[in-house]
Amino acid sequence: MIYLDNAATTSLDRDVLAAMEPYFTQIYGNSQSQHSFGRQAAKAVQSVRDSIAARNVCSPEEIYFVSGGTEGDNLAIKGLCHAYGRGHIIISGIEHSALYDSALQLKSEGYELSVIPPAPEGIISPDAVREAIRPDTIFCGVMYANNETGIIQPVQDIYSVCRSKGVFFYTDCVQAAPYMPLSSSLADGLVFSAHKLYGPKGIAALYIRGGTKVKPVITGGMQERTLRGGTLNVPGIVGLGAAYEKCVSTQETVNPYIRSMRDTFLKRVLAEIPGSRLNGSGPMLPSHANISFDGCAGENIVFSLDLKGIAVSTGAACSAGAVTPTRVISSMLGLPRAKSAVRFSFGRNNTPEEIPQVLDALKECVSRIRSV
Amino acid sequence: MIYLDNAATTSLDRDVLAAMEPYFTQIYGNSQSQHSFGRQAAKAVQSVRDSIAARNVCSPEEIYFVSGGTEGDNLAIKGLCHAYGRGHIIISGIEHSALYDSALQLKSEGYELSVIPPAPEGIISPDAVREAIRPDTIFCGVMYANNETGIIQPVQDIYSVCRSKGVFFYTDCVQAAPYMPLSSSLADGLVFSAHKLYGPKGIAALYIRGGTKVKPVITGGMQERTLRGGTLNVPGIVGLGAAYEKCVSTQETVNPYIRSMRDTFLKRVLAEIPGSRLNGSGPMLPSHANISFDGCAGENIVFSLDLKGIAVSTGAACSAGAVTPTRVISSMLGLPRAKSAVRFSFGRNNTPEEIPQVLDALKECVSRIRSV
Repeated sequence: MIYLDNAATTSLDRDVLAAMEPYFTQIYGNSQSQHSFGRQAAKAVQSVRDSIAARNVCSPEEIYFVSGGTEGDNLAIKGLCHAYGRGHIIISGIEHSALYDSALQLKSEGYELSVIPPAPEGIISPDAVREAIRPDTIFCGVMYANNETGIIQPVQDIYSVCRSKGVFFYTDCVQAAPYMPLSSSLADGLVFSAHKLYGPKGIAALYIRGGTKVKPVITGGMQERTLRGGTLNVPGIVGLGAAYEKCVSTQETVNPYIRSMRDTFLKRVLAEIPGSRLNGSGPMLPSHANISFDGCAGENIVFSLDLKGIAVSTGAACSAGAVTPTRVISSMLGLPRAKSAVRFSFGRNNTPEEIPQVLDALKECVSRIRSV
Repeated sequence: MIYLDNAATTSLDRDVLAAMEPYFTQIYGNSQSQHSFGRQAAKAVQSVRDSIAARNVCSPEEIYFVSGGTEGDNLAIKGLCHAYGRGHIIISGIEHSALYDSALQLKSEGYELSVIPPAPEGIISPDAVREAIRPDTIFCGVMYANNETGIIQPVQDIYSVCRSKGVFFYTDCVQAAPYMPLSSSLADGLVFSAHKLYGPKGIAALYIRGGTKVKPVITGGMQERTLRGGTLNVPGIVGLGAAYEKCVSTQETVNPYIRSMRDTFLKRVLAEIPGSRLNGSGPMLPSHANISFDGCAGENIVFSLDLKGIAVSTGAACSAGAVTPTRVISSMLGLPRAKSAVRFSFGRNNTPEEIPQVLDALKECVSRIRSV
C-alpha cells in the first residue's frame, strides 16, 4: 500500500500519540475545573498555547482551539463579519469550501462578496486584491498554499495591501503549516489543523489578532475567552502541540526529503507519460503534484490506482462525493483540465523506493484508460 | 486522589482507547477519500452511526457527528431556527449555557424567547410548556437530566405536548446518556457527548429527526450530508461508539453500583452535617448529589476539598471562572442556596471505600469554614 494523499490527512505520529496518552486516562480532568485534575489539564492546554504563540510570534491569548480547519475558517469569517453586521468581503476563488461556502452564506445574509479568480498559474495577485478593496471592505481571505495545487500565494504582499487599507486579512494555513513557518506577520488571522501535520483529527489552532471584534459561532460556556464554548479537547490539544512542534523543528530536513521525491516523480511523469501536464506553476509546497492526463477522467485514475494499492485523489477529500469537478483547477485552467486532474501528495512517511512503483502503475492505468 | 466530578468529565476507558488506537496510526485515512484508506475509515464511521442508530431507534442518516455537546446544542437550536428565519423559541431556565446562550443570541437576532423557570424541586412542568406554546413556536428545548442537580425532567410528557402542537422538541442528553437509555421516542432531536461516558473529549452524536429543515452552523464540505463540514474525527467517532456501547450495555449493573454509593454518601451528609440540604428532589440520576451547606461559600468547600485531594465542583465546569453563582440552583431555590451549593458526582471508577474519606474531609472543611 502506498499513500500519496497526505494533503487529505496524515497518519498520527507515534511520538505525538505517546504525548497524548497520559491525557486520556490519567490527566483526564476538564480544563475548566477548579480542582487539581482540572488544573493539570489546564496547565497542559496553556503550555501548548504558549508554545504555538512563541512559534507564531503572537500572544497566547490570540490562539483559540477549535475542532478543525473548517471550524476555524467559519469562526474567522463569520465571527468577524457578524461583529460588523454588514460590509464587503473579499475571498479568492481557490479557497477551501470551508471559507468559500461560509462567504456564500454571508452573501445570502446581505454581505457583499467579491471573489478573485486565480491566474492560470494558480496565483492570486496582490494587485487584484488592491483593486477589489472598497471603503466598506471588512474581510479579505486568501489561503497561504492551495490544497489542490500546493501553489504558495503571495500572502505577505496581500497582507501589506490589506493593512494599508485597514482591511482584516485572513489566511488559511491548513496546507502550508506542515512545510512553511507561520507567523502573525503573515496575516491578522490564520488557522492550521493537527491532522494535516501528523497530529490527531478534530483539533486546530486559530490565531486572531488581539483587539479584533469577533462573535462566537459556537456559543455557551466561558471557554476560550467566551469565543468558543465546549469542553476543551485536552488530549487533542496536546497532540496538536506535539505534532506542530515536531513538524516545525524538522522542516529543514523533511522539506528537502519530500521535495526531492516529488520532483523526481513529477519530472518522470511529465517526461514519460505523454499528455500529462502539471497544474499550476510558481512557488509550490514540496509535497504536491497536481497533474492532468489528457483523455483521462481524474476519478478513473484514482480508482485504478486504488486497485493497485496506491492512494491518490482528484480534488479535496472534503468535496469527494460531489459530482462537479474541482472548482480550483477549473477556475485556473478550465473544465477539461479540471476533469482530468489528479493530486499526488507526498509526506514524510513516503520513501523514494515507492516512486518507480507508482510510475509503473500510473503508466499502465493511463494507457488502459486511454485505450477504452 | 478521589474524583467526584464525573459530571464534568470522565477518564477515558481503557477498552475504548484500545478500540480507537488502530485509527490513529493504521487506518488513518480521511473518511471522505475514495481510496481504500478512506473507505476503511468510512466503514468504521458508518458502523458507529449504525450502532448508535440501532440503540436510539432511529435511522443512521439521522445521526450527525459533531465536536461536542455544545456544538450539538448550537446546531440544533440555531440550525433549526435559522431554517425558519423567525418565530418563537421555548427553553427551560435550567438548560446548559450551550443552549441557553444560543437562545439568547437568537433573541438578539429577532426571534422571540420564552424561558420556563424550574419549580423549586428543579423540574420543568409539561403544563408550563403547554402554556408557553404559541402558534408561532418553532423550537422547544428541555434537557433530559440537569447537569448540576441530576434531576430527570419529564421529557416524555413534554414531548407529547410539543408533538400535539407541532413544535420541534429537543432534549440535551449529555448528562443523562451515561445512565438512561436514549431513544428517538424522547424527542425530535437530542445530543450526547463521549467524554461524559468514559469516551474521548471532542466528539458527540446529534440526532435530528429526518425531514427537519436545519441550516449548518459550520459550513463547508460535503460531510454529514452537508450539515456539518470538516474532516470527520474518525478515532473520536470510534471512541464515542465504543464508549456508548459499553455504557448502555452495563447500565443495569453500573447504575445500582453508583446509586448505592451516592445514596450512602447523601444520607450520611444530610444526617451528620447540620445545615446541609439537598438541592432538587424527584427522580434523579444515580450519580449526582448537589448539596448546599448553610454559611459556606460553595467554592470554599471546593478549594478545601481539593487541598485534601478530593475533586468536586460548584456549578458546571463550563461556567467555572464566572463570577456569578449557578443560574440553575439560583432559579430553583434562590441566590443564598446557590452560593453555598456543591456538586458531588459519582462514577463507575469510584469505590465505596472512598465515601468515609470524603465524609471526614467534608465535615472538617465545613466546620472550619463556618468557624472563620
